[in-house]
Amino acid sequence: MHGEALRQAIEKIGPLDEDARARALAWQDDLTKVPGSLGDLEAFGVQLCAISGQCPPPVPAPGFVGVFEGDHGVQTNKVSPWPQEITYTMGVNLASGGASVSVLARHAGADYRLYNVGGLKELPEGDHIVNCRVAAGTADLTQGPAMTREQATEALDIGVEAARDAVSSGARALVPGELGIGNTTPAAALIAAYTGRPADAVTGRGAGADDEMLARKTRTVEQGLAANHVADQDALGILAGVGGLEHAAMAGFILGGAAARVPVVLDGVIAVSAALAAVALAPQARDYLFAGHLGPEPGLRVGLETLGLTPLIQLGMHLGEGSGAALALPVLAAAAKIMREMSHFSDGQVSGEREV
Amino acid sequence: MHGEALRQAIEKIGPLDEDARARALAWQDDLTKVPGSLGDLEAFGVQLCAISGQCPPPVPAPGFVGVFEGDHGVQTNKVSPWPQEITYTMGVNLASGGASVSVLARHAGADYRLYNVGGLKELPEGDHIVNCRVAAGTADLTQGPAMTREQATEALDIGVEAARDAVSSGARALVPGELGIGNTTPAAALIAAYTGRPADAVTGRGAGADDEMLARKTRTVEQGLAANHVADQDALGILAGVGGLEHAAMAGFILGGAAARVPVVLDGVIAVSAALAAVALAPQARDYLFAGHLGPEPGLRVGLETLGLTPLIQLGMHLGEGSGAALALPVLAAAAKIMREMSHFSDGQVSGEREV
Repeated sequence: MHGEALRQAIEKIGPLDEDARARALAWQDDLTKVPGSLGDLEAFGVQLCAISGQCPPPVPAPGFVGVFEGDHGVQTNKVSPWPQEITYTMGVNLASGGASVSVLARHAGADYRLYNVGGLKELPEGDHIVNCRVAAGTADLTQGPAMTREQATEALDIGVEAARDAVSSGARALVPGELGIGNTTPAAALIAAYTGRPADAVTGRGAGADDEMLARKTRTVEQGLAANHVADQDALGILAGVGGLEHAAMAGFILGGAAARVPVVLDGVIAVSAALAAVALAPQARDYLFAGHLGPEPGLRVGLETLGLTPLIQLGMHLGEGSGAALALPVLAAAAKIMREMSHFSDGQVSGEREV
Repeated sequence: MHGEALRQAIEKIGPLDEDARARALAWQDDLTKVPGSLGDLEAFGVQLCAISGQCPPPVPAPGFVGVFEGDHGVQTNKVSPWPQEITYTMGVNLASGGASVSVLARHAGADYRLYNVGGLKELPEGDHIVNCRVAAGTADLTQGPAMTREQATEALDIGVEAARDAVSSGARALVPGELGIGNTTPAAALIAAYTGRPADAVTGRGAGADDEMLARKTRTVEQGLAANHVADQDALGILAGVGGLEHAAMAGFILGGAAARVPVVLDGVIAVSAALAAVALAPQARDYLFAGHLGPEPGLRVGLETLGLTPLIQLGMHLGEGSGAALALPVLAAAAKIMREMSHFSDGQVSGEREV
């Protein structure tokens, strides 16, 4: 019976430490700078205190990037210009260190692992590879549920366990990454379903859809939402109906991070769709999230607004894999180090008194 | 006779390597990602190739933060709410590792040094301190030139030599930083003079001016521009007339970086004002610049637009010192590693062919 790891994680997710937050706000104002002059970096540091319960906060490093791979029945509708074999070949590439997220994880000093939860093909054995397929891809979401509730739950469990294992091994920040040709279509459908926004407000070009493909993709999202009666579904029903196996596993990974009181840094539209699923399952999970990167996908902006998150970086990236979040890890670590290493007005060396 | 280091640097600044840029563009499209999907990070990588003449580019690390300190006669007009003693006490704090830029430089693996080119007081001797005062502060720019041309030239030389020494010691990216109560007023005056924009379009709140102080500061900038007849001055005359000793030294530091073909990462409004001075002295210096951070100071936005630079980070910071640029160093390094470490479509493992 699946769902035990998920149940435990949800039960464990607690509120932030408001006492630590209050101490963090006072602490920031005692650092030798004009109060507020570090902008959003100050707010990130305060949030790290509220998450960890410590002021100053622990440095959220090393990070761990869990990349979840799946294929999608919805690709029958030609919603991505790329052949499905790319899911497999990019998986091998990523595990061997040559993908964007592999490079950026290494640069941030983060370990990474590829969990094959739903690829059409088994991956070869390898150091960074975990073969744990729930199914060989999903069903076409325009014809009914992409997954059974049981399959979605199994993928959620895998994600929870991946987060738990990473934190046990020393990870202090988690990045949910993904690989899967066609997976921005279920992401758009999830964002539409969880936020109530129409398909055309959340569907974007993904990995290079032209105008015609974008129109078809938007219709496909509409069909999926209708075929699965998303307005009548619970959080798990939406995820199973219009999601993907990697989206479900990423949602579990996010919940596992929140349960361990570790910050979770989101990347693009797929991670934000998984985060909306996670928050639908456990609302307090929201408080453990950071937005690594704001890119051009419309669903990403809608999702981040819904979650109330401020991006660490904005560089127009739209590659996926977790790239934007991995790139943001050093910025998040800096927010903690500012609080840990700057000197204080109350030390007496520098005066915090204005003259005028 | 001062100006020899400056003259040599200007003579040495050459055009970018357009052949390396062309190779870099083709190289980016062969990396295993959708072309363009890394957004601005791709453009930064290409620029690093054109600067260095190498494709893939060397990683721009370790960085070196040169912080230049000065005081300002214009503070007689109460253009900053902070007492001038803060320049000295924050200098000691910075050198001992407790200032924001000290923390962020360490985080980026960058060395830093504080050059006292124009503080009212000599700094104590210390590891990170270079006492090299040209004068004990500048004259009040509303009453005539803040510096003589000779003083400005001497400060430029110090900056050039600081860059040269840093690169000789292994630095592969330079950050011009600054300390000096009142120094956003000369920065605004420099930006107005070099861009032709009016004082009220480029004058901001600096380290916390309220509405009344902002109005006085804007009038002070106008008075300085008028008293120094900036429209009739050459690049050096403008810098000497309405600049500061740290602004001049930062301009030299930027020119020294460009002469050494090393990327120079700008921080806020003071660095951008120094960059405008550097580019006025040697137009090709522009091509070696990166914008570390876009903050709220209006002069910063005007300066970055004039220079045509895209910010690496945008987090609403306005602390100065070089903080935003130091925070951006790991992002710039990532742009190089992407080009050096990602695998290629032409390796044959991953196909770059679309299906649709």
